[in-house]
Amino acid sequence: MATEKTIAFVLYPGCTILDLVGPLQVLSTLAAIRPEFRVVVVAERLEAAETDTPLRVQAGHTFGEVPAPDVLVVPGGEEATMRATADETLLAYVRGAAAGARTVASVCTGSFILGAAGLLEGRRATSHWAMLDALAEFGAVPTRERWVADGPVLTAAGVSAGIDMALHLAAELSGEQTARAVQFGLEYDPEPPLGALDWDRAPRAAYAVVTRRWVREALGATPLAERLIARLGDDG
Amino acid sequence: MATEKTIAFVLYPGCTILDLVGPLQVLSTLAAIRPEFRVVVVAERLEAAETDTPLRVQAGHTFGEVPAPDVLVVPGGEEATMRATADETLLAYVRGAAAGARTVASVCTGSFILGAAGLLEGRRATSHWAMLDALAEFGAVPTRERWVADGPVLTAAGVSAGIDMALHLAAELSGEQTARAVQFGLEYDPEPPLGALDWDRAPRAAYAVVTRRWVREALGATPLAERLIARLGDDG
Repeated sequence: MATEKTIAFVLYPGCTILDLVGPLQVLSTLAAIRPEFRVVVVAERLEAAETDTPLRVQAGHTFGEVPAPDVLVVPGGEEATMRATADETLLAYVRGAAAGARTVASVCTGSFILGAAGLLEGRRATSHWAMLDALAEFGAVPTRERWVADGPVLTAAGVSAGIDMALHLAAELSGEQTARAVQFGLEYDPEPPLGALDWDRAPRAAYAVVTRRWVREALGATPLAERLIARLGDDG
Repeated sequence: MATEKTIAFVLYPGCTILDLVGPLQVLSTLAAIRPEFRVVVVAERLEAAETDTPLRVQAGHTFGEVPAPDVLVVPGGEEATMRATADETLLAYVRGAAAGARTVASVCTGSFILGAAGLLEGRRATSHWAMLDALAEFGAVPTRERWVADGPVLTAAGVSAGIDMALHLAAELSGEQTARAVQFGLEYDPEPPLGALDWDRAPRAAYAVVTRRWVREALGATPLAERLIARLGDDG
C-alpha cells in the first residue's frame, strides 16, 4: 500500500461541524470510489468533543498517529477557533503535517489556524466573509472567492463553501469524472430556497460586534487580539 | 418557557453524517438567532456511534427524554438506513414523535424510515435519486424535487438537499428574514466547481446494483426486501 494517500481532518473542541462534515462527506465518498485514498479524523485526544451544535464528535486517531498526511483539512468556527489559534499543540501538528503535505486546506475561519501556524505568509487566501479582512494580520492576501488555491494552500469561504472546495480538491486528486460521481452520490445540485445571497444586504455591522467578541473572549488582551480586532471592521 | 420549540434530530448507527449535519447546522444557527428554538440530537443510546465516515458522533438525549418534539428530522444513509427501516425501537419513536409534531422531516433515504413508520401513505415525498422509485412501496407518491412538503411531512432529496430543505423550514418556522440571516451565517452561496449535475449522465445502472445490495444485506430475504429490490431499477 505504498501508494495509499491519507486525507486527514483536524478536529478540535467547539469547531463548526459543517465545516468539517461537508468536505469529510465529499472526500469519504471519493475514498469509497477510489480505495487508494484513506480518510481519517485526527485530534489531540480521542475523547468525544463538543461542536458548535448539540452533536458531540470523536476522532479516530491522535495527531501523533498521523504525522504526515498527504492532505490536511482544518475546519473553522467561532470563538473556539480563535482560541485554537493560540493552541500550540494544534499549531505544531498543523505545521508539521503541512511540511510534507500535497495540500493544506481550511474551511471558513480555519484559515486563521493556518495563518497562526505561519502557512499563509504572502499567500492569497479566503475565510468566512465576516472575518476575511483580518486574515491580513497573518501576512495573507485576503481574497474574496468561494475557494482559493495558492501553491499547496487551499482555503474555502464560510462553512458551506467547504463542500465546493472539497469537490474541487476531489477533481484535482482523482479527475473530473470521479468528482462528478461523488457529486451524484451527494446529489449536490443546490437550490437555495431564498436564492443566492444579496451581498449588499450582508449584516456587516452586526457581525463586526460578534467577531470582535469572539477574538476578545478567546485571546484576551494579547497584542494579536488587539490587531485582529482593529481589522474587524467598524459598526457602521 | 412554555413557548420553547424543540427541534429533534434522530441519530442511528451508520447514518450518512452530512444528512444530519447539514440541517443541524442550519437549524442550530436559527436557534442561536431565535432562542425560542431548542435543538437536540436524540438516539436510542448515548454511546458514540459510527457514521458512514470515520467520524464517530454522540447524541445528547435518549428517545425517552424527547418524546414530543415540535420538529423531527431523520437522516438517511446506505445499508445502515435500510437496516433502520426494520428497527422497531426507532420506528416506534419516530411514529410517536410524529404524532404531535408540526413537521416531520427526512433527508435522503431517511424517507424510507418515515415510510416504514407508516407516515408516507398517500403523501408526495422524495429521497435520494437512486432510490426514489422504491419509496412507492410505502404508499408514497415518489416526487422528483429538491424537497417536498405534504402536510406535516417534509422530505429532501439526497444528502446535500437537507441544507436547502432546512433553510426552507427555517423560513417557515421564523420568517424569510431570519432564514436569510442563517444563510449569511453559513455563507450558503453555492458554486459547484463542475457545475450542476447532468441528469442524463446519472450512473443509474451502477447505483441499481449497489442499492439492491444495501437492501439485501440489511433486510435479508424478507418480503419487504423482495418488493423494494423489484422496484430498484434494472441494470440497463
